[in-house]
This record gives sequence, C-alpha cells and structure tokens, in this order.
Amino acid sequence: MTKINENFLKLQAGYLFPEIGRRVRAFAGENPKADIIKLGIGDVTEPLAPAVTEAMHEAVDEMSKTKTFRGYDDSGRGYDFLIEAIIENDFKTRSVELDSSEVFVSDGSKCDCGNFQEIFGLDNVVAVMDPVYPVYVDTNVMAGRTGGADDKGRYGGLVYMPCTAENNFVPELPAESVDLIYLCYPNNPTGAIATKEELKGWVDYAKDNKAIILFDAAYEAFISDSALPHSIYEVDGANEVAVEFRSFSKTAGFTGVRCAYTIVPKELEAHKSDGGTVEVNPIWNRRHCTKFNGVSFITQKGAAAVYLPKGKKQVQKTIELYMANAAKIRRSLTKSGYDVYGGVNAPYVWLKTQNGMDSWEFFDLLLQKANVVGTPGAGFGIAGEGYFRLSAFNKPENVEEAMLRLAKI
Amino acid sequence: MTKINENFLKLQAGYLFPEIGRRVRAFAGENPKADIIKLGIGDVTEPLAPAVTEAMHEAVDEMSKTKTFRGYDDSGRGYDFLIEAIIENDFKTRSVELDSSEVFVSDGSKCDCGNFQEIFGLDNVVAVMDPVYPVYVDTNVMAGRTGGADDKGRYGGLVYMPCTAENNFVPELPAESVDLIYLCYPNNPTGAIATKEELKGWVDYAKDNKAIILFDAAYEAFISDSALPHSIYEVDGANEVAVEFRSFSKTAGFTGVRCAYTIVPKELEAHKSDGGTVEVNPIWNRRHCTKFNGVSFITQKGAAAVYLPKGKKQVQKTIELYMANAAKIRRSLTKSGYDVYGGVNAPYVWLKTQNGMDSWEFFDLLLQKANVVGTPGAGFGIAGEGYFRLSAFNKPENVEEAMLRLAKI
Repeated sequence: MTKINENFLKLQAGYLFPEIGRRVRAFAGENPKADIIKLGIGDVTEPLAPAVTEAMHEAVDEMSKTKTFRGYDDSGRGYDFLIEAIIENDFKTRSVELDSSEVFVSDGSKCDCGNFQEIFGLDNVVAVMDPVYPVYVDTNVMAGRTGGADDKGRYGGLVYMPCTAENNFVPELPAESVDLIYLCYPNNPTGAIATKEELKGWVDYAKDNKAIILFDAAYEAFISDSALPHSIYEVDGANEVAVEFRSFSKTAGFTGVRCAYTIVPKELEAHKSDGGTVEVNPIWNRRHCTKFNGVSFITQKGAAAVYLPKGKKQVQKTIELYMANAAKIRRSLTKSGYDVYGGVNAPYVWLKTQNGMDSWEFFDLLLQKANVVGTPGAGFGIAGEGYFRLSAFNKPENVEEAMLRLAKI
Repeated sequence: MTKINENFLKLQAGYLFPEIGRRVRAFAGENPKADIIKLGIGDVTEPLAPAVTEAMHEAVDEMSKTKTFRGYDDSGRGYDFLIEAIIENDFKTRSVELDSSEVFVSDGSKCDCGNFQEIFGLDNVVAVMDPVYPVYVDTNVMAGRTGGADDKGRYGGLVYMPCTAENNFVPELPAESVDLIYLCYPNNPTGAIATKEELKGWVDYAKDNKAIILFDAAYEAFISDSALPHSIYEVDGANEVAVEFRSFSKTAGFTGVRCAYTIVPKELEAHKSDGGTVEVNPIWNRRHCTKFNGVSFITQKGAAAVYLPKGKKQVQKTIELYMANAAKIRRSLTKSGYDVYGGVNAPYVWLKTQNGMDSWEFFDLLLQKANVVGTPGAGFGIAGEGYFRLSAFNKPENVEEAMLRLAKI
C-alpha cells in the first residue's frame, strides 16, 4: 500500500501567488473592462538584452549542426565558459576568490533554495526571517523538519525571526542555537539590505553555533549603495559557514529562461552523528548530479553574454529602469502619507498600511478601487501583517498610472 | 550544529558514468593518439531537427521584444501549446485520453524520476529492476528509504527484481507486497520491451497491492514493433496505479536542451496513516510548483515543434539512423559469436560477455584493445554482471569502425 508523505498535508492551503491569481481572476471576471496593473508577483517585464538573444541565436545555430552540437553538459554543474565568467565578474570584482568546483549552475534560485535543505538531516533547527519567501518554509515542511501549522500559519519547530519597522527589518541574532539559517539580502519582500557589519554578525553567530547560513542574494544586482556587500563572502570566513544563491532571473530578465547558480565553498562542513565532520560541497555535487541534469546549452550561452561589455551595459540599463520605477513608487507613496521602506537597493517597496488595515483588506481595496495588484505582507508571514509589497517590475508608464490611481484613494 | 543527511553517506562511491569517465581519461592520457569511439553514456550525437531550431529562433526573437516577451510560466506546469501537442500526439493517437492538468512539463526525466519519490512516505517498500537505471536507487537511498549497501552494492530494504537472459529480461512479479515499483520500458540498459499483457500483469499487481508504478518510458520513440504499447495507459485501469515519465532527450536530441514531461492521472491515489486516501496529482503539483519553476519558453517552443508534421519527419529520420546503428551492432556482435539482446525496440544493445568475463574486465579490454567505450552491466546492478551495454547513439561511420575493431578481438 503506497503511503503518501504526510508532511505535504501540513502545508497551508494556498501558496501565496495562486491565491492572488484567484482573486485577480475573479475580479477581472466581474469587471471585464478594468485595466488591471500588476505590481504583484515580481515578474520582469523588459525583454532580454540584445547581447543575450544574439548569443542564444548563435547557440541555437550551434545545436543545429553536427560539428557543434552539444548533448549532456558532462559535469552537470555548468559549462566552464559560464562558470569562469561568473567567478571573474561577480566575485573577483569584489575581491572574492572562488574555485570553479564551488559554482553549481542551475535552472533557478527557487529550485536551489528549495532543494538545498535535502542534504541536511531532519533534526536541524531551521531559522527564517519573517516575513519570508515561502519556498524556504514550505520545502522544510515537505521534508519533515517542522510540525503542523498553528492558527496563525506558523509551523512548529521553525524559528521565526520577526523583521518589522521597529527593528528596521533586520532581525536580531537568535537567542537559541539554530542550525540552518535562511537569510535573503537584498530582502524579498521588505527590500531591506544588510551591511557588511550585520553580515559579519551572522557569520560569527554561525561559527559559534556551528550553523550554516543559506544566503539568498538573488537581488544583489539592484544594490545601488557602493558601500554595501553584494556577496556574503565579502565577510572574512563566510566561506566556512555559508552557501550563496544567485540568479539571472531578475538581474537579466531570465524568469522565463531559467538560469541561476549556487556557491558551495570547499571549506564548508556539516556534522555527523559520530561527532565527525563531512564536506558539504561533494555531497551537494552528488545531489545535484543525481536529481538534476544540467542547464540548456542555449540558456548558458545567453547567461554568459550578460557578462560581455555590451551585455553588462544593456542589463544595467534595464535595472536602472526598474529602479527608477521603485523611486517613483517611493516618492508617490510618501507623498500620500505612507511609511515606505525598501526600493533603494532592492526592486521591492514595502509599505505600512494606514489605520491598522490588514494586508489582505488593503489588497482587495487596491484591486477594487485602483485596479492595482500588489502582494499582501501577511502572505509572507505574520510579521508581514499590516504591510504590503509593490514590485518595481513593470513599464514606467504603468507604474506612473498605478501611482496616480493610488494617490486618489 | 548543522547535521548532514547521513543517508548520503550510504551511497556507493562512484556514480557509474563518472567512473567510466575517469577510466577513459586515464587511458586517453596514456594513449594520446588513440581514436576513442564512445558507445557508452548514451548521449545523442545528431543535431536538433531544423523544425526545432527554427521554432527556437522564433522564440528567442519573441523574448527580445517587449510585446512578446514572456516571464514566468505562470502555472509552472508548462505552456498550453506544448501540453496540448503532447496529449494530441503522444496519447490520443494511442487511444489514451488525458486532461491537461495531468501533464507536468519539466527539465528532464532524470529529474522527475529522481524527484517523484519525495511525495511518498519513507516507509514504502520500493522495488526496482536489476540491472537498473541508478537514479531510481540513489534517490531512494538519499531520501532514507533504504539501509546501507552490502558488499555487492545492494541496499538493504530495496526489492531487486533480477532481469537476465534466463527470464528474457522480464522480471517476475514480486512474491512479497511492495508499494512503489520502478519499471522502465523500453528498458535501459537491457533494451528489453514489455508487451501489453506483461504491463497488464503489473497493473493488476499494483491494484491488488495498492501499489504505485513509476513507469519510465523515456525511450518509447524507439519502439518499432507496432503491436507493442508506448504508454502504460494503453492498459485499462493503469491511470489508477501509474505515473509515466516521458522525455524529449533521446526522442528529439534534447539531452543538451532539457525538456521532459510526467503524467500524473487524477485517479491516482495514495494512502494516509489514518486509513484514508489522498489524490497524488495535487500533491505532485504542489511539489512541482514549490521546488521547480518551469521550463524555458524557448525550450518549450522547440519541444512543441517536434509535433509539427515536418518536425515529426525530421525526428523520425534521426531515430531511424540510430536504429540502423543498433541493427549494425546486433549483426556484427552476433557474427562474432556473442549472445545479443535489445537493439530492436530500444537504442541499447545488451550483450553477454564470453567465457564468463566480468563486465568491468570486458570494459577495460574493449577500451584498451579496440579503443571503444561501452558500459559495464555490473554498473547497473549485480544482475548486470557478465553483461555489457553498447549504445546506438553515434555516427554510423563510428559505429561501423567500432564494430570492425570489435570483430578483431
């Protein structure tokens, strides 16, 4: 008799974005003429950079000819041309040295963030920021590292680290000893950022507690303040305690193309029950090469073009367009009297609703009165209640229009 | 203190293909002039079909323009244009009706075969054919559904079903009750095929034992005998007990492009500890949409082109080229006195070594004397000892040359 993994039955009904989709479809059904502007899910709107599509056309041509056709990516970890470009451009420029064996190219940071926990035991205590990107939590629930959810939607056994205006959206170090810590900077959803000193605090904590930090830096390309770290490895010794997730999704508009990478330093160790230690890199390599089979050659060629001089310029221009949207959203909301956070080093603006309105109520209000879709803070965790996320990923004219409508309500 | 998932430490040292790679590199290093012909890993060699690359060029162009740019594949389960083409061409033509919600497009059958076990409890008894595609076994070891390996490399708790010349490579139904059954037809590595009647035996067994069959049909495009089933759903009632994995990798040369799909029927149920049942489809959907984020739009466009009239013709031509290779290998080996299996409805030829030579010994002999790389049967399980796999995926002239060299030793 086939038994289901009952941990899946603990999961709360709606994954956030399907629930938003449901409400938007219902509204659109009743109001077919409404011109709905979506600043919700955080999907990019600008096309791929010309350097990227040029490289992809070339790669498709290579795949059409016997001599240049490529089958399996033998290592399963990514082609050297991409891994070298990543190391050279994303890390050497920030004085971080990496070996090619420490880079694992994949089809998305969501996948990597979700999969990485598999290589750790079920008896690890997991800490997450609250509000939190739901994938960190849900994948730990599926694995069986939590109890059921309480009436507020918090799973037993997880350590939630509240991030609110009161602590400037930077959580305190856990008072208890935790084993796996998910950190996301620039933060989704709050748009908060960590200074090098704050990251050093986490690295020190991880060393003291023999913990591992799973550092999600999917939005690092949006950092505008030159004093801020882009990688956790800019902190000395972080290679002994941290994994880092990076993505081309938001950086280069790859949400529909699928490419990301994860750094697993050779120095990183986890513990065995006999008291010994084991290197994490070969274990992840085994997992990656067994349950995954590499990224499309065409996609990898496109990703590598992001690092060409012209690719860099084109990608930067798009990032600037989105960040101009973020600035516009910030200005407009501030003018309307909202408390506004994020949107300076991150493509998300996080606002506090007024008069204690709850965040799904605010969602419905915006949808109905302004035909604008955002993301209710409560969807990211109970510490997100009373907050609301607006994404800068849209056409400038749509953002302009959305802000005009918001100013009226 | 971060604890490792100690199940990973049970895994046998070498995943098969890295070990082959190691031996080949060592030999090539010592014999730099050797012209090595690879009939080992089973990677395709023919370029993508023109219909596919044409569609991919168009898709790249769409991604380069604001109006036609695509971000996230909203459902995460694949675009309708591909799902409809799959249902229409791969199933309706065989009188199998499917709903679009039963098709999950992914980036590879290896990934799907590896991931699917996650949604089942750890207390299920798993049965695998022996020889076996290592991914089925290794992913169950990682999950913790087995004990450690014995000195022959068999993991405790797994039910191995031997497939040898004695039973014509068709395993007997397990005497004990098992819960999850991995079947692969056309078989990798033996090239054996299942008749509709044999599949019916499995479906009946699964019904009687409330078991689920994980049916890997990645090689169905290579079936030449029109009486043979391409899908397990050609057996009545299989939708209540089976999941099916399909791939574009070998069918259309997508090993370097990455596209596959999995069928999860709505009627399929698993059991809860309270005695109730639960539908498998929504559970897999939740897993798929949480730990995966869809396949590249460009890749999906390419995959859909496989179903165009010209795409079908082009792909079929390549399959015929590979199957002519298989026939050539069969003829040549038979002439040399080998007992030869497979290679008629599958792109793999499975041969019995002579004079009881063990399969790694035969591997080394072939590499050293003929500079030909194949895959030792023992790498797929102990019932594969004394057998050897040759793949039909290569240029006809290389296969010709390899057979001339083999005939001499």
